[in-house]
Parts: sequence; C-alpha cells; structure tokens
Amino acid sequence: MKKITVGLIQQANGEDVPGNLKLLAENIEACAGKGAQIVVLQELHNTRYFCQTENTGLFDLAETIPGPSTAFYSELAAVHQIVLVASLFEKRAPGVYHNTAVVFDTDGSMAGKYRKMHIPDDPAYYEKFYFTPGDLGFEPVRTSLGKLGVLVCWDQWYPEAARLMALKGAEMLIYPTAIGWESSDTEDERLRQLDAWIISQRAHAVANGLPVISVNRVGHEPDPSGRTNGIRFWGNSFVAGPQGEFLAQAGNEEPENLVVEIDTERSENVRRWWPFLRDRRVDGYDGITKRFID
Amino acid sequence: MKKITVGLIQQANGEDVPGNLKLLAENIEACAGKGAQIVVLQELHNTRYFCQTENTGLFDLAETIPGPSTAFYSELAAVHQIVLVASLFEKRAPGVYHNTAVVFDTDGSMAGKYRKMHIPDDPAYYEKFYFTPGDLGFEPVRTSLGKLGVLVCWDQWYPEAARLMALKGAEMLIYPTAIGWESSDTEDERLRQLDAWIISQRAHAVANGLPVISVNRVGHEPDPSGRTNGIRFWGNSFVAGPQGEFLAQAGNEEPENLVVEIDTERSENVRRWWPFLRDRRVDGYDGITKRFID
Repeated sequence: MKKITVGLIQQANGEDVPGNLKLLAENIEACAGKGAQIVVLQELHNTRYFCQTENTGLFDLAETIPGPSTAFYSELAAVHQIVLVASLFEKRAPGVYHNTAVVFDTDGSMAGKYRKMHIPDDPAYYEKFYFTPGDLGFEPVRTSLGKLGVLVCWDQWYPEAARLMALKGAEMLIYPTAIGWESSDTEDERLRQLDAWIISQRAHAVANGLPVISVNRVGHEPDPSGRTNGIRFWGNSFVAGPQGEFLAQAGNEEPENLVVEIDTERSENVRRWWPFLRDRRVDGYDGITKRFID
Repeated sequence: MKKITVGLIQQANGEDVPGNLKLLAENIEACAGKGAQIVVLQELHNTRYFCQTENTGLFDLAETIPGPSTAFYSELAAVHQIVLVASLFEKRAPGVYHNTAVVFDTDGSMAGKYRKMHIPDDPAYYEKFYFTPGDLGFEPVRTSLGKLGVLVCWDQWYPEAARLMALKGAEMLIYPTAIGWESSDTEDERLRQLDAWIISQRAHAVANGLPVISVNRVGHEPDPSGRTNGIRFWGNSFVAGPQGEFLAQAGNEEPENLVVEIDTERSENVRRWWPFLRDRRVDGYDGITKRFID
C-alpha cells in the first residue's frame, strides 16, 4: 500500500432526509467514479445539524446500529467497493444515544465503529443533551485499506485523541465534523475560529506524522427555536499530509467533493526525518490523565 | 494582572561570546526601555549553536547554575526590573550536562529553572551527545508576573509538554529555540518545515487557551566540521494569543526585537468560549504514557 485515494463529501443539508441521502449516494458514486477508495462523509450527514436546540422529539432521528442507515451505506460501500466512513445518531438503548462513526469495508461489511468521546456543549451545539460520551475508547478501525483513526468533530481539539490513535497504529486520522459561524461574531473572530480549527488538525498531522482528513458540512441551517440566526457551516474540508501540509482544501460557501491521492509512504519517511515519536518522555506524562493539577 | 508586555530577542550569534553577551545586554535594555516586563532570549543564546558537531571539547562551554552567566543575567533582570528567561548549557556534574532555561524575577533572584525534557538528535542537531534529558518534569516557574510554562525548542513538537504546563497552571507558554534550514532542502520543504513549526506551537495555544511566546535565533552558522553547509536559522520568532492568533511575528533574515502586549484576561474568556479543558476524557487517556500501543 503506497497510494490511497480518498474522497471527501462536503454537503449542504436540507430538511428533506431522503433528499439528503439521495445526494449523498450520488456524491459517493461521483467520488468512487473519480477513483476514491476511501470516502468520508461529514458528521451526522443524514439530517440537518439537529443539536441547535434541546428537543426530546429529536431523539426519533436516532437509529440502531445495525439499522436502516447502516444497510443503506453498507450497500453503497459494496456497490462501489470503497471503504466508507459514515456518521450516525446511534440509538443504543432507551436513554443511551451516541454520536457514532461507522466504517464499512469494501465488501460492505461493518469494519468497526467509533463513538464520539469528547462531547461539546455550547450555545447552538447542545450535544451533551443528545449524546452519551463514547465508551469504546480511541481505537483505530482495521479495514482492508489500512487502520483508520476515526474521530469526530469536537475530538479534533484534543491532541490526546490524535496521539492515542497514532500510538495504536492508525495510518491516517479522519474527522467527520459539523462546525460553523454564529452570525453575531465579527469577521476577525470568524477568521480566528476557522484558523484555529485548521491549525489544530494540521498540528495533529505534524505531531503524529500522519495524514489528516477533515470533512465539514457547509451552508446555512436555521435555528428551529428562532433564538439565534442559525449556523453558517464553514466547509473548508481538507486533507493534510504528514507534515501538516495541505493536499487539498474546499471553500467555505459551496458543497464540494474532493478526491485526493495520499502517499502513505510519506508517513514512514516523515517519521524518520521528524522522529518525534522516538523522543516522547513517557516517564513524565503521568499528569495527562488528571483533570487539572493543583 | 490584565496586560503584560513581553520582549523577544531574535539574535544572530557570532563566535565572539563576549560580543554576543554585549549584544544581548543591549537588546534586553532596548526591550525594557520599550516597556517589556518579561524578556525571553533564544535557546543557548550565549554562543553559536554548538551542537552541529559532536566534540568533547565543547563541553567546556557549559557552566554551573548558579555560575557566571546566571550572575550576568540576574543583574540585568534586577537593573531593568524584568522577568528574564535565559537558556544556558548547564554543567551539573562531570558527565551530566543539561540544556536549561533559567528564569530570573524582577529583583534578580532565580525564580526557577527548567531542564529540556525532549532532546533531539538529527544531522546537525546532535543534542543527545551533549544534553542529559531533563529530570525536573514539566513544572511552570512561579514569578512575580505569573506562572510561566517555560519549555525549550524540541519540546515544541510535543502536545503533552504544553498540556502538562497548562494543567499545572501556566499562564503562558514560552519556547526559547534554535531551528533552521539545511541548505540542501528544497524551497517547498523549507516552507513545510517552517509552517509545521509555527502551526504546532499555535495549536498548543489553541488546545490550552494560553498565549505562546517562541524565540528563535536567526542568521547562518557554519558547520565547524565542514561536512554540511551549516544551518540558516529561520527566525520567525512570534507571539500567539490564546486562540492561536498571531500577535506579532519577526522575519526570517534579520535580528529583531519584538515588544508585544499580551492581554492575559483573554485566556479566561477564551477558555469560557472554547471550553476544551472541561471536556477532556481523562478516563480514556491512560495509553498516553506508553511508548507505543501494539
């Protein structure tokens, strides 16, 4: 395995769920048609980003895994013979719901899943209301195309998550995500937010000598409560190489598919040139598992 | 404490050590004259970057702490009533040498020291030959102007080091450093290296909601062995705010002093807006203290 082509689907979602799924299927087909071997979808791609409000009725959007959505995406993976990274609202048990990434292998089998570990709670991102924190840890998913370090959105702010995936042999880091701007933020603040989001993920690539794939949604979604002006998701889906260098980047306004070749041999070389893993002071890192050290 | 003015001295060093010290003293005075309350010097600022070759004779450059250099910098700190972050080649015992940052308080007293924990070893950066890895851990230094998370150069590639300083209450991260280009690298590769170096440190600011101050040397220093074309230190000393935003950045060619005001109140605010520390999954981070998880 030297080169892998990845497809990223940055989509604008409407209220019509079957319409969103139809669009996803078309985009998956388009990416596969351009040679994508691994296709990554954005976070919670079936629906609007429903966490803008806290509404018990919205738990109806959740599904079991396996369930109808896994059947749908499994078939798409098999038909196109791709590894497919999907992001679902998982109903595990009454009162236990997760934000779960599911990875399908090229034969349509479920290669593994990851339940979002870090759960945000910010105005308009009320995820702690909906999602029980993940309990599967930071485990890469083994596929026929390599070990994928799949994490989800808020995880991207945590160097620990990226590091653990790398230490467990992940060959790339993958972030389905849903992040955008609030209308009251100044232009300067928006740029700081976007820049921070990009450099944090590129820095995971550098620290761990791994490519990073981040797929964000795009477009405006209104706040159903009417209390805010909604979220303008900022797109900017990108692929970075193992030195943190951009391999491709989408814009912030439009739906877009990126199909990008990754040279996985570079990770081996970059880790020889930049031997950061060699010199970790693991004897001095104990405090990392503490909340705060006071 | 709301605003603190920091001074960064990006210097080109020659073979003449007293000449380097004289220049440092002048630059410290200049920064203090412009209102700097904390002045940060680059890594191993007294001399050329001597680690380009492995030469037992060069251990003669090391000094005890306290010793002549600490006396010199202590006086400068006291005279200008500044906190001063110096970087010295420490002789601790025969055969035990460290790369040590020393922090002087505004009265000239030694507030604390940090012995570089992560030691590189790359062609032209033969630091493992000279420096015993630090044994003081990642402990911020308490000064009259706040708790300073002082780290050194290679440490900047390790999110663990930045995180531990933040968890121990550091109010800013400070990196004296010495990094540059090798003449055989392509222009593309140089840009990737510089960019990786900058985004990694800015990402520490983002992940931890802290300002970051990084002071690098500048100018070309020849390889005494003649085997390489030496190192062109790339400067680019900078200050980033707690969202990773640039507050100031020096160029890559010339010696330069930066005097920059930091609003330390912003860390409190940024950590409220971006509550990353709140959501850390400390129950899931155990593996971080392992070399590799296989």
